[in-house]
Amino acid sequence: MFRSLLQLCFLCIALPAALTSAAASTDRPPNIVIIYADDLGYGDLGCYGHPTIRTPNLDRMAAEGMRFTQFYSAAEVCTPSRAALLTGRYPIRSGMCHDQVRVLRNNSTGGLPDVEVTLAEQLKEQGYRTACIGKWHLGVWSNDPKHHPMHHGFDVHFGLPHSNDMNPSAGNPKMANALAEQKAAYWNAPLYRGLKLVEQPADQTTLTRRYTEEAVKFITEGKDKPFFLYFPHTFPHTPLFASPEFKGRSARGLYGDVVEELDWSVGRVLDALRNQGLADNTLVIFSSDNGPWLLMGETGGCAGLLREGKGSTWEGGMRVPGLAWWPGKIKPSVCRDVACTMDLFTTCAKLGGAAIPQDRVVDGRDITPLLLGTGGVERDIFCYYRGQRLYAARVGVWKAHFITQPAYGPEKPVTHEVPELYNLEEDPGEIRNVAATHPDIITQIQTAVAKHRATVKAAPNQLEGTIAP
Amino acid sequence: MFRSLLQLCFLCIALPAALTSAAASTDRPPNIVIIYADDLGYGDLGCYGHPTIRTPNLDRMAAEGMRFTQFYSAAEVCTPSRAALLTGRYPIRSGMCHDQVRVLRNNSTGGLPDVEVTLAEQLKEQGYRTACIGKWHLGVWSNDPKHHPMHHGFDVHFGLPHSNDMNPSAGNPKMANALAEQKAAYWNAPLYRGLKLVEQPADQTTLTRRYTEEAVKFITEGKDKPFFLYFPHTFPHTPLFASPEFKGRSARGLYGDVVEELDWSVGRVLDALRNQGLADNTLVIFSSDNGPWLLMGETGGCAGLLREGKGSTWEGGMRVPGLAWWPGKIKPSVCRDVACTMDLFTTCAKLGGAAIPQDRVVDGRDITPLLLGTGGVERDIFCYYRGQRLYAARVGVWKAHFITQPAYGPEKPVTHEVPELYNLEEDPGEIRNVAATHPDIITQIQTAVAKHRATVKAAPNQLEGTIAP
Repeated sequence: MFRSLLQLCFLCIALPAALTSAAASTDRPPNIVIIYADDLGYGDLGCYGHPTIRTPNLDRMAAEGMRFTQFYSAAEVCTPSRAALLTGRYPIRSGMCHDQVRVLRNNSTGGLPDVEVTLAEQLKEQGYRTACIGKWHLGVWSNDPKHHPMHHGFDVHFGLPHSNDMNPSAGNPKMANALAEQKAAYWNAPLYRGLKLVEQPADQTTLTRRYTEEAVKFITEGKDKPFFLYFPHTFPHTPLFASPEFKGRSARGLYGDVVEELDWSVGRVLDALRNQGLADNTLVIFSSDNGPWLLMGETGGCAGLLREGKGSTWEGGMRVPGLAWWPGKIKPSVCRDVACTMDLFTTCAKLGGAAIPQDRVVDGRDITPLLLGTGGVERDIFCYYRGQRLYAARVGVWKAHFITQPAYGPEKPVTHEVPELYNLEEDPGEIRNVAATHPDIITQIQTAVAKHRATVKAAPNQLEGTIAP
Repeated sequence: MFRSLLQLCFLCIALPAALTSAAASTDRPPNIVIIYADDLGYGDLGCYGHPTIRTPNLDRMAAEGMRFTQFYSAAEVCTPSRAALLTGRYPIRSGMCHDQVRVLRNNSTGGLPDVEVTLAEQLKEQGYRTACIGKWHLGVWSNDPKHHPMHHGFDVHFGLPHSNDMNPSAGNPKMANALAEQKAAYWNAPLYRGLKLVEQPADQTTLTRRYTEEAVKFITEGKDKPFFLYFPHTFPHTPLFASPEFKGRSARGLYGDVVEELDWSVGRVLDALRNQGLADNTLVIFSSDNGPWLLMGETGGCAGLLREGKGSTWEGGMRVPGLAWWPGKIKPSVCRDVACTMDLFTTCAKLGGAAIPQDRVVDGRDITPLLLGTGGVERDIFCYYRGQRLYAARVGVWKAHFITQPAYGPEKPVTHEVPELYNLEEDPGEIRNVAATHPDIITQIQTAVAKHRATVKAAPNQLEGTIAP
C-alpha cells in the first residue's frame, strides 16, 4: 500500500496537518474573489484565441479551472454591468441604466440605491471580511457620501470612483484625441483609500500594480474569517497606462502591455492564494464588464469572432471572457452553457450561506451545478438591454433582436417589425438572420420576453441627476 | 544525490530500460505525421477560441505540444497549398498555381511535375515507410497515371484524387445549391486504394472514419522502419458529411459535426502512437490547407478575428491552425513566431536525415529551433500569392498589400499605388491601414519582394490543361 517506509513516515507527519486544513475548509464557506476587467473583449486573451497578447496566468487559470464560452455581462456598458453583478438583478430593476446617459459621470449625484442588496452585504452578514479594490462606478461619493462602497457592504476600499477617463485635466483636448494619446497629464483621476482622497491625479501607470498589492495584502491578513474580494480593475479601459515593467513589452502595443499586466496581477492573486494554503477553499472568478471599445481603434480590444463591441447588444458587446477557478472543486473543463455575471451574486451568496432576498426579483441563477459539474441550470431567458430598453433576448440557442443600433455614433435605433433571429451556437458571429424560416421560435422568444417584462417595475432612475455646474 | 535508497534501486532497474529506449530513439530518425484539414479556419477549434465546436483531442494535442498563432499555408486554395507543403516551395516555382483556374479540376491533365522533389521522396530515400491517406489534389491519375501519389514517393495510398465537390452526379443542381444541400446522391467521388478504384460514389459519410482506420493500420504495422504519414483529410471541405456517430452531435451544426469527427480522428492517431510506444519518437503536425470557405455560409468555417477567408490573401485566407506534438521533445507552449507549411518540408526532411535539394530554391525554413525551443528562425519574407500573382508580403510584423480583391465574386483585383500596410501583431484583424505614416516600412518590404522576385523563374503552368471534353 505504501511504496516506501519514507512515504509512510511522511504521511504520519503530514496527515494531521492535512486533516486540520480539511476541517478548516469544511467548517467554513469558501472565500470568494471576483476579478473584473474593464472593456476587455471576448477575443483578448490567449485562451480565447488572441494570437499575440500573452496571458500565461489567465491561460493557466483556464487550464486548471473552467473556461466559459457563453458567459455574459448583464449590460453593454460599465455602470449597469457592475450594478447587475453586485445585485444579481437586471439594472432596469435598480434604476442603474439609462438610454442617453448610459453611465454615471463625474458630476452624477445618483448611485446604487440603498434598498439594493449587494453581494458584499450578503457575505458580510455571514461573517465575511469584504473588500472592493479598483474601480467602483456605482456612485460618486464626493457628490454624495452614501454612494461609497463602504456604504454597500465593503469593509475595505481602495480605488477610483469611476472610469479613468472621467476627470479630464484643464489642458485635455477633445475627448477622442485625449483617449488616443494616453498622456498622463490629460487626466486627473482621484484615488481613494476608503473615504480619504490619497492621490490626485492618480499615477495610473502604477495603478494595476498598487491594486494588486492591496488585493494580496487583503488576502493574506485576517485568516480567522472567510473573505470576499471584489477586484474591478481600471484597465484596459482607455486611456491606457502600464507600469515601466510592462510598457512596450507586448507585440499587441500598449493595449497588449496593459492586458499582460492584468494577467500578471491575476497570477499574483492566485499565487497568494496558493502560498497561503487557501486555493482549495477559494472560488476565483475572472470576467469583464462588457465587450471591447472598438471605437478606440488600436487602444481598444477585440471581440474575436463575435459581432460588434462595447455599447451594443450584439454578442461582442456583452459576451465576455469568463473563468472560474477552485482547485479540487472545479475540474479543468470548458463550459459551453450560458452563464452571466448576475449568476455570480446568487451563486456566491449561496456558497457563503446567505439567503437570496425574497422580496424582489433576483435574476441571477445558482450556477454551482455547472461549476461542480453536477448538472445543468434552467434559464428561461437572457435579456440584452441597451440602457432602459430591451433590444434583444436569448432563449436556448436562439437570439432575437427586436431593436438594433450601432454601438456609438449618430445612428438611431431601428425597431424590426420581424425581429432578426440568430442561432448563436451554430452562428456565434450573428451573420445569418434566419427569422424567415423560424417564425415559431420568434413567437416563443416573444412569449418569454412578455413574461420577463411582467416582472419589471419602474424604478427611479439613478443616472440623470447631476450636481450644480 | 538520491533521496532514498529505494529511489536508487528504482534507477538501477529502470536505467537500462531507459537507455535501450533512448538508444532506439537516437538510432533512428523520428516518425513524421502531417494531418492536414481541408478549408478549416483559424477560428474553428476550441484551442483557437471557437465557442461551440468541441475539439478535446486537438485541444489536448495543443496543451501537450506547441500551438502556433501565426502559422501560414503557403497558398489561399487547395492545389497550390498542397504543392507548397510537399515541396517546400512557393507554388509559383512548380507551376502549381493559376490566376483563373485556381485549382486542378476533375478534367485536368496537369499535376505536380516529376522534377519536383516531395517530402515523401526525401524520406523514402532515407528508409522511411511512406503513406498518403486522404485527398491528393496534385493531379488526377485517371487522366494521367504519373500524377498518382505512389509516383511521388508514397508507398501506400488510400483516398480521393481531389476535392469532394469535383464529381457532380448527373442529377446535381447548380453547384452552390448542391454544396449547401449536402446530399450524398449529388456526388460521385471516386475512392482509390493505390491505382485501384475501390468505390464510386465513395460513401463520404464514413470517409473520415475509414481514412483513420487506414492511418492507424499504417502506423501500427512494420515497426522496423521509421514512417512518414501524410494524412490530408477530405473535410471540412463542402459538401459536408459526417458518420452516424457524429451527425447531429454538434451545436455548431453539420460543420461542427464534421470538425468534431476530425478531432476524434486526431485522437485515434495520437492514441495509436501512444499505445505503440511511438509517441516519444514521432513528430505530429496538424494544420489546414487554407482558410474557411466563407461563401458557404453555415457549412463553411470561421477565421476568428482574422479578416476574410479561403481564396483571399487577407490573413483569414492563409493563416491557419498549426499544432506540433512530440512528447519529450516539444514542450507545452504557444509559439507566436511566424511559421508556414513550406517549413514542414525542410524541417521534416532534415529530421529524417535527408539533404535539402541544392539545385533549386527551397523556401521552407528549418523550424526545429522553434519546435525544440532552442532559438528563433530567420525569415526575410513571407509571400501571399493569389494564383500566380504576388498580392501581399510580410516582413517581420508588417504586411503590405500590393493588390487586394475579395475572395470570390465578380470584383476585379485592385492594384494599390501606395500599398496598404498593417502591423499584424498589433492589428491581427487588418483593420487599420497605417501606410501613410510608415513609408519606410513599405520601401523595406518592396526591397524584400524584389529580392524574392529575382529568385522566381517561369515554370510551365500545370493547371490549364484539360482532357478532351
